[in-house]
Amino acid sequence: MMALLQRLWPVHRSLMGPGIRETLRMLGDEMAGFSLGSAATGQLVLDWIVPDEWRLDSAYIETPDGRRICDVADNMLHVVGYSTAIDAELTLEDLQPRLHSLPDQPDAIPYVTSYYERTWGFCLSERQRQMLEPGRYRVHIAATHTAGRLDYGQCVLPGDTQEEILFSTYCCHPAMANNELSGPVLAVALARWLSGLARRRHTYRFVFGPEMIGAAAVLAEHRRHLQSHVVAAFNLTCVGDERTWSFLPSRRGDSYADRMARHVLGHAVGRFDAYGWHDRGSDESMYCAPGIDIPMVSIMRSKYGTYPEYHTSLDTPGRVVTARGLAQSLALHQTLVASLEADCMPQALVLGEPQLGRRGLYPPLSRKGSSAPVRDRLDLISHADGRTRLLDIAERCNRPIWAFLPDLEVLAAAGVLAT
Amino acid sequence: MMALLQRLWPVHRSLMGPGIRETLRMLGDEMAGFSLGSAATGQLVLDWIVPDEWRLDSAYIETPDGRRICDVADNMLHVVGYSTAIDAELTLEDLQPRLHSLPDQPDAIPYVTSYYERTWGFCLSERQRQMLEPGRYRVHIAATHTAGRLDYGQCVLPGDTQEEILFSTYCCHPAMANNELSGPVLAVALARWLSGLARRRHTYRFVFGPEMIGAAAVLAEHRRHLQSHVVAAFNLTCVGDERTWSFLPSRRGDSYADRMARHVLGHAVGRFDAYGWHDRGSDESMYCAPGIDIPMVSIMRSKYGTYPEYHTSLDTPGRVVTARGLAQSLALHQTLVASLEADCMPQALVLGEPQLGRRGLYPPLSRKGSSAPVRDRLDLISHADGRTRLLDIAERCNRPIWAFLPDLEVLAAAGVLAT
Amino acid sequence: MMALLQRLWPVHRSLMGPGIRETLRMLGDEMAGFSLGSAATGQLVLDWIVPDEWRLDSAYIETPDGRRICDVADNMLHVVGYSTAIDAELTLEDLQPRLHSLPDQPDAIPYVTSYYERTWGFCLSERQRQMLEPGRYRVHIAATHTAGRLDYGQCVLPGDTQEEILFSTYCCHPAMANNELSGPVLAVALARWLSGLARRRHTYRFVFGPEMIGAAAVLAEHRRHLQSHVVAAFNLTCVGDERTWSFLPSRRGDSYADRMARHVLGHAVGRFDAYGWHDRGSDESMYCAPGIDIPMVSIMRSKYGTYPEYHTSLDTPGRVVTARGLAQSLALHQTLVASLEADCMPQALVLGEPQLGRRGLYPPLSRKGSSAPVRDRLDLISHADGRTRLLDIAERCNRPIWAFLPDLEVLAAAGVLAT
Repeated sequence: MMALLQRLWPVHRSLMGPGIRETLRMLGDEMAGFSLGSAATGQLVLDWIVPDEWRLDSAYIETPDGRRICDVADNMLHVVGYSTAIDAELTLEDLQPRLHSLPDQPDAIPYVTSYYERTWGFCLSERQRQMLEPGRYRVHIAATHTAGRLDYGQCVLPGDTQEEILFSTYCCHPAMANNELSGPVLAVALARWLSGLARRRHTYRFVFGPEMIGAAAVLAEHRRHLQSHVVAAFNLTCVGDERTWSFLPSRRGDSYADRMARHVLGHAVGRFDAYGWHDRGSDESMYCAPGIDIPMVSIMRSKYGTYPEYHTSLDTPGRVVTARGLAQSLALHQTLVASLEADCMPQALVLGEPQLGRRGLYPPLSRKGSSAPVRDRLDLISHADGRTRLLDIAERCNRPIWAFLPDLEVLAAAGVLAT
Repeated sequence: MMALLQRLWPVHRSLMGPGIRETLRMLGDEMAGFSLGSAATGQLVLDWIVPDEWRLDSAYIETPDGRRICDVADNMLHVVGYSTAIDAELTLEDLQPRLHSLPDQPDAIPYVTSYYERTWGFCLSERQRQMLEPGRYRVHIAATHTAGRLDYGQCVLPGDTQEEILFSTYCCHPAMANNELSGPVLAVALARWLSGLARRRHTYRFVFGPEMIGAAAVLAEHRRHLQSHVVAAFNLTCVGDERTWSFLPSRRGDSYADRMARHVLGHAVGRFDAYGWHDRGSDESMYCAPGIDIPMVSIMRSKYGTYPEYHTSLDTPGRVVTARGLAQSLALHQTLVASLEADCMPQALVLGEPQLGRRGLYPPLSRKGSSAPVRDRLDLISHADGRTRLLDIAERCNRPIWAFLPDLEVLAAAGVLAT
Repeated sequence: MMALLQRLWPVHRSLMGPGIRETLRMLGDEMAGFSLGSAATGQLVLDWIVPDEWRLDSAYIETPDGRRICDVADNMLHVVGYSTAIDAELTLEDLQPRLHSLPDQPDAIPYVTSYYERTWGFCLSERQRQMLEPGRYRVHIAATHTAGRLDYGQCVLPGDTQEEILFSTYCCHPAMANNELSGPVLAVALARWLSGLARRRHTYRFVFGPEMIGAAAVLAEHRRHLQSHVVAAFNLTCVGDERTWSFLPSRRGDSYADRMARHVLGHAVGRFDAYGWHDRGSDESMYCAPGIDIPMVSIMRSKYGTYPEYHTSLDTPGRVVTARGLAQSLALHQTLVASLEADCMPQALVLGEPQLGRRGLYPPLSRKGSSAPVRDRLDLISHADGRTRLLDIAERCNRPIWAFLPDLEVLAAAGVLAT
């Protein structure tokens, strides 16, 4: 995952245009079952109007003494995303309102965009800004806004049933590691692992596109299908660091996705920061909106908006995202998938507690504590009423869902219960 | 409010008779839409039999040395309410069982009544009682019990809908300020303020009468109407002091009135004493009774029965009730009414999260924290599914209902949602 | 109860055979309405196959120096229950795997059985085991396994309605007091007390038999009847000591039996250990199983499996079970029965709060605190909506159900409510 992230790092991504197209191409090359979709400039996707594409050729400022600063060749964050073209000379005083910096983080270049209103500006560190001398500055942005299309990609892995698990992630941010590339590279790794499974009960869909408007475009095209097929949806974002785990619920808060995610986090990692719907800030706003109602949750490490490097030039591989952090997120999401695959509605096939002893499934000698090793087995049977999900059984027993898998198999083989 | 309270103070009120009639006349003069109702002596109102009217002309005790004490000309509380007439001489020993005082509050004259069983008695401070010398006392009560009528008043302020908000208050207690006059004068002020509003969504009904049997009389006459029209009912009592706020729930405990009252108290005053149904002691017993089932709650300052001056001569304007206490209660009940008026079922008119930017309702420049100022707006939209009350939305967001009113208006004007 | 327990103590009980038959005969002699039932060896009762009867004539070990140890004539626990016959000489080394002791409790003989797999073994204290010298040991077990029958007993006490309260208890353990005989002797005492009541609203059924397979046999025969008639079921076990009270819920956890048992424990004893379904270990597994769904709970003193003497020779009358402990359990279960008998659905017969004063049911003189003595009466009326059980009313008032019985009678006599 880290290698793919490093390859994606230098691409100049934005909402629409060549950068995101190149990114989708590189992601698609890693997966089977990948396809592209799009929406044209001017098209209405749900309530959103698809804007022009933005192509940035160069952008920088020339200081009074002729030095070139804020050059996007050094860092793509130096220009306000979707800036209009300009080539002009300004006094420092006139330039100041066009500059963005973070007084509280003097070494960080902030990430600023203006997708839906035409303007221009530059971003720089507060330290650099303080060193600017009075005088005349030349600002140069060579950029074009032209009618084009919004691109997104999907990878669909069919399973035994048409019930879908949806993983959504976005790839429209330039030069940021945790709040951007960690999501797509985890999605790729998860899709590749799923491709290799001998059997999948669910169909898995991965969606890659620009944040918010990308989700709107996907829903404009696939809403009916997704509403009727998706049983649980997950937003993959901020999954690359090693700090505290976080959970962001869906609007309903008690959907199947919410319950399964909380279960897996609770049993696999224990402590995690539980946020509320009102802390949201990504595609779940679109998927969970009234009338759409596809419950989407997020399992994250450091939640966007809460860690200091968020939306700045400090959100880099190495400093924030690590190979170990990515590997832990992959492992956790594999556990999530395994739990979704394992969940079923166990139904006892005998009346009353079965006589496990005559099937060799109970310790023959009865003595103090002799039933302890078969406690999960007995609990599983006692709840197998054909109306209760394995997830609910596990929660009632305060045990991880995966603890019951060996007994589920043994009891099914013995004809004691059906899954 | 304080001026009206001072004018009502000297009137000799009781359950039925000239005092309460005079009180209702004075209250009615303050409001538009006021009308009187009555039930005749002997009439059955729900399960209650309307007793005779009581007219008290004079009552006092003459001490062995000829001084006049316990004179109702000094304080109406000196005679047991509904006492029968008497003019007799008794020894102090024979008089003692007829005297009522409070050993724990030696300076307070208690409030005692015997509406439904004929007897007589006097109330005095424990200090005064201790000073009584042995000897012969003359007791004098000039009072008549005659067939007449139970009176109550109503003020109805029609609104855009027939859904009614009911405010009930009682005015049958003599010479007590917080546990009596504070309720009626707040009701008058609230009714006058409501009369002046440009628009009322609900119809408002204020009921004034004797406690318990008055509620029975109102219900005997108007039960069907009230059961089918009242959406929330409030008992106005003990609303004039400046001590801790209190809340008494309805029998159900989770009715609309309960939820709205708790919401308003929680967000407008923060800390308050939450009592249970089993702490009740007023008209809610009648309105919430099985078969009536009109959920009535009380928002109070010092709850009746819990403050030391309750039902004694110490419950006076100045000592307990203040102009500031009354004004705070008026403000809180205005907030309550505003919240009831504002509550609605917002319904998003677009599918998915709307593009607020193109409507000028979202900050054009996207940067760290840029969505914070429109957080309420986004939250409101995200919950506007047409099935969830604004009250519930506010509770889920842990925000006061009134915080959403500007955004509700802005979004409705923009065609993004309907209220 | 202690006398009966002492008489039952020496009987050599096991799952099936002469011991349990003798025990059932002795229990039946104490009660009216007692009858026997059975299932034949080889018969399938629910999912269980009834095994052979076991008849033990003698069992002991002869040490190399000719002493007889582990003699069941001294303590029935010395032989593994359902051991096969043997008469052989072994070295100590070969004998060791056949011996059972408890290293942590060096003075206790453990209770071990092997009902459903043919084997043999001896149980002894760890202290005795440590003293065994190398050499040749003669093991002797004279026992037969023969086709026969599984026996159980029932005592049914008809009531005014066919709704049944089921008490189940087991009597298949030898030589243990709390985790065995305390249950049957309490059942006998409770049945005798119930027989003497002038009136029973419910029908009461007591079941005595071997644990688990006995329940299966009873259900195989009476399942349909029990499923449609039993309103609450209780397992009587571990009810003879004086330690902390315990509660084990049904699988559902919120059944009528659960709620009533918690109510009675909460108000009659206050503090008790609340266990979960997953701590179960007795007949509730059979009764609560999916497809059976007869909610059964247990009110115990020291729960089985949690006290040190459990399933050892230390669980004796005197050391664990006391006359006082048994008497307290009887009293508590009498309170439970009284509460079940008292529970009803009170329905107010008047509209609104009734005028209790004119019926002499309210203090005539109204003064501070005068309603306190009739608080339960007022609360009872205020909740008597004909849809709420007395148990729920009591819980809402945080009062024991039995506190309302006098008022229930008074108000019914006054025609104010129906029960």
